[in-house]
Amino acid sequence: MAQNTPVSPLAPAGFPDMPTIGGVTFSSCAAGVRYQGRPDVMLAELRPGTAIAGVFTRSSTRAAPVLDCQAKLGGAYDKGAAILVNSGNANAFTGRAGLESVCAITQSVAEKLNLPESRVFTASTGVIGEPLPHERVTQSIGQLANSLSPEGISDAARAIMTTDTFAKGAFQQVQINGQQVRIAGIAKGSGMIAPDMATMLVYIFTDAAIGQENLQAITSECAELTFNRITVDSDTSTSDTVMVAATGASNVDVNNDSAFKAALHDVMLDLAHQVVRDGEGATKFIEITVSGAQTDMDAKTHALSIANSPLVKTAVAGEDPNWGRVVMAIGKSGAPADRDLISISFGDVLVAENGWVHPDYDESKAADHMKGTHICLGVDLGMGSSRVTVWTCDLTHGYISINADYRS
Amino acid sequence: MAQNTPVSPLAPAGFPDMPTIGGVTFSSCAAGVRYQGRPDVMLAELRPGTAIAGVFTRSSTRAAPVLDCQAKLGGAYDKGAAILVNSGNANAFTGRAGLESVCAITQSVAEKLNLPESRVFTASTGVIGEPLPHERVTQSIGQLANSLSPEGISDAARAIMTTDTFAKGAFQQVQINGQQVRIAGIAKGSGMIAPDMATMLVYIFTDAAIGQENLQAITSECAELTFNRITVDSDTSTSDTVMVAATGASNVDVNNDSAFKAALHDVMLDLAHQVVRDGEGATKFIEITVSGAQTDMDAKTHALSIANSPLVKTAVAGEDPNWGRVVMAIGKSGAPADRDLISISFGDVLVAENGWVHPDYDESKAADHMKGTHICLGVDLGMGSSRVTVWTCDLTHGYISINADYRS
Repeated sequence: MAQNTPVSPLAPAGFPDMPTIGGVTFSSCAAGVRYQGRPDVMLAELRPGTAIAGVFTRSSTRAAPVLDCQAKLGGAYDKGAAILVNSGNANAFTGRAGLESVCAITQSVAEKLNLPESRVFTASTGVIGEPLPHERVTQSIGQLANSLSPEGISDAARAIMTTDTFAKGAFQQVQINGQQVRIAGIAKGSGMIAPDMATMLVYIFTDAAIGQENLQAITSECAELTFNRITVDSDTSTSDTVMVAATGASNVDVNNDSAFKAALHDVMLDLAHQVVRDGEGATKFIEITVSGAQTDMDAKTHALSIANSPLVKTAVAGEDPNWGRVVMAIGKSGAPADRDLISISFGDVLVAENGWVHPDYDESKAADHMKGTHICLGVDLGMGSSRVTVWTCDLTHGYISINADYRS
Repeated sequence: MAQNTPVSPLAPAGFPDMPTIGGVTFSSCAAGVRYQGRPDVMLAELRPGTAIAGVFTRSSTRAAPVLDCQAKLGGAYDKGAAILVNSGNANAFTGRAGLESVCAITQSVAEKLNLPESRVFTASTGVIGEPLPHERVTQSIGQLANSLSPEGISDAARAIMTTDTFAKGAFQQVQINGQQVRIAGIAKGSGMIAPDMATMLVYIFTDAAIGQENLQAITSECAELTFNRITVDSDTSTSDTVMVAATGASNVDVNNDSAFKAALHDVMLDLAHQVVRDGEGATKFIEITVSGAQTDMDAKTHALSIANSPLVKTAVAGEDPNWGRVVMAIGKSGAPADRDLISISFGDVLVAENGWVHPDYDESKAADHMKGTHICLGVDLGMGSSRVTVWTCDLTHGYISINADYRS
C-alpha cells in the first residue's frame, strides 16, 4: 500500500504548481471505502457546455463504471457535468451489484448537484472482485458537494492514489491568437500498467472551447502516442480511463488548433512518464526507441516486446548492458526483423551493427550508461523509416515485494 | 549460474533410471567453452537409418545452429548421424562468425565419425551475442569420439545445463505387438521459457522404427501439446530445439501406432514439466486449465495470458488466492470472454461463478490450496467446449536475483 512504500527514487521533485482552470471545481474527502485516515474520493464539477472525451481499457472484463462512462460519452452537453472517483475498490468483476453501485453513486451525485445522471461519470480503482461498499461513497457526497473549490486539484490527485508513491499532476499553458488556454491533468497508476490503458486513471481539464467530436479525436490520437506507449508489467487493468474535459471558460476556440493539440499531448506525455516513474519497484526509467521499421505498428510491436521482457527489465535492474536479451525480445515479437541488419545502442554507445557486436564496442562505456536512472535503448532494424518510442521501468525485488502481498 | 544456485524446491527426487537405447551412444566432456571444471559438451552418435525430426524456435533472430539444423532435416538417412551440443555460449547474434563456428564443429564431427556433414546436428546454449570459441569444442572432439558409450545419457544431460539447477531426464517403455520399444529424453532449460519453444534444448532417443515424415508429424503434434504449453517468463529463446531420433534398433515398426505416440507425448510432458519445475526462482508449480472456450486457440490464449501475467505469478508466490488478477488476465488476453459467464476455481474451491464471487466461497480454503507447491487454477468461460491446460511457475525474488546478474 502507498502508505508503507517509500516514494519512488524516480519521482519528480514535487507536485507541480497547478493554476485553476475556469469552469471546474474540485473536492475530496476520506470516505473509508477501504483505506483509513486518507482521502479516497474525489469529485469534480464542470460547468454547462463542457465537452468531455474519453479513452478506456479494451479489456473484455472491464469494470461497471467503465461501461457506464463509455455509454454516456458523446451525448448532449448543454448541462453541467461531474466526475466522481473512489480509490480502494475497483468495482470490477462484481456482477449485477457492480452496476447497482454505479447507479447509486451517479444518482446521488446527480441529485446533489442538480445534474442529469447521463452527465455524471464515475470511476473506481483498487481491489478487483469485491463488492464496492457504495454507501460509504454516497454518504460523503453532501460533504463533497459543499466543499467544491477551484483550488482542489492537488488534493483530488492524492485521493485517487492506490499503490502510487506520489501524486501525479501536469500543467501546460498555451497562447492561441494572443489568448491564454490552460490544461491541467492528474493521474494515478503504478502497477498493472500496459498499453490499451493501464490501472491508470487520468483526468485532464482545460478552459479551452472545443466541440466534443474534435476533442474526442485529439484525445484518442494523443493517448495512442503517450499512454498507449507505456508499460510497467504488461498487465492491463479492467478500469483504465483517460478523460478530457474542456469547459470553454476561456472563450478561446481551439477546434483544429495544432498548438492546443501539442500542449494536450505534452500534458499526457508528462503524466504517462510519471506513471512509469512510479512503476512498482522501479529504480530506472527506460526509453526504448525502435527505428528503421517498415511500419509504426512493427516498430511499436518490437519496442513493447523489449519493454515487457522480464529478462531485459531485470538486466537493466542489474545495470548489465545485456544486448543479447534485446535481440531475444526482437526475435520473439512476431514483427518482421532481419537478424543481420539490426543495430543496437545503449545511450550513445553503439553496441551492435548489422547483426553483430561493433568492432569498437567498449562495454565499460555501455556499463556507465546503465548506472544512470534514465536508460536509453535504441534499436535500428535497417528495414524502413518508421520510428516509435515507448517507455517502461526495470523489474526489481521491489515489484515482487509489492505484489506478492498486495491483497492479503 | 547453476553452480551457485540451490536446487529448485520443485525438483524431482533424482535423475530417473535410464536404460540404454539401441543404436545410440553418448559422450561428454569439459571443453571450457565458458564454464570451468564441469562438462559442457555432449556428443550423441546415431546408427545408419536413424530418422530425425525436429521442432525449433520461431524467433526471427534465431541462432546459427538452429538455422543449420532446420536446413538439414528431412534429408536421406541411410547414413549414420550425430548430435553435438555445447553449453555456455549460444552462438546467437554472432553474424558470419556464427555460421563459421557451426561449420567448423560439424566438419570436425563428420570427419572423426566418418559421417556426411549433412547428418551432423549441433546446438549451442548460453550467452547470446558473444562469438563462440569453437576451437575449444573442436579440440575436444577426438576425446568425445573415443569415449562414446550406450550408458552416457545422464552425463549428457548434465553437460547441456546452463542456469538449470538439476539435470532433466524422462523414460518410457511401451509394448507394441508384444515387443518392447524404449523412449529416453533429456532436456535443459529454466529461464527464457515460453511457447514457440524456450531456451530449451530437448533430445529424445528411441529404438523404434518409423519413417522420417511420420516421426516429424507426431513430434510436431506432441510438442504443441507439451513444450508449447509451458512458460516461465514469456521470453522466447533464439535457440530452442526439440529433436527426436528414432534408430530403429528394436525393429519394431511404430508408424501410425497410437501407443508409441502416447508414450512419446508422455516423455515430452514429463520433460516439459521438469523445465517448469526448474523455472528460475520457482517455488510453486502452476497448472492452469481454461475450459468452456469456443476454440482450443481461445482457451490457450487465455491460459497463457494468465500464465504470463506478472501479477498472477506474484500472487501465487505470495500464496494469495487473488482471483481478481485472474479476471484481469482473461480480460487483457484479446480472446473472447463474457465477464458474466466466467467461473474461477483454485484447486477444488469454486471461487467465482457467472461473473461474481460464489456465495459459499470460503477464502480460507482457497488460501489452504495456495500453501501447497502444486497450484491448480481453473477457469470456465461458459462459451463452448474447448479445454486447454498450460503449466508455469510463480515469480519470486529468486527470478530477480538470478537475472539481474546473470551475465556480469
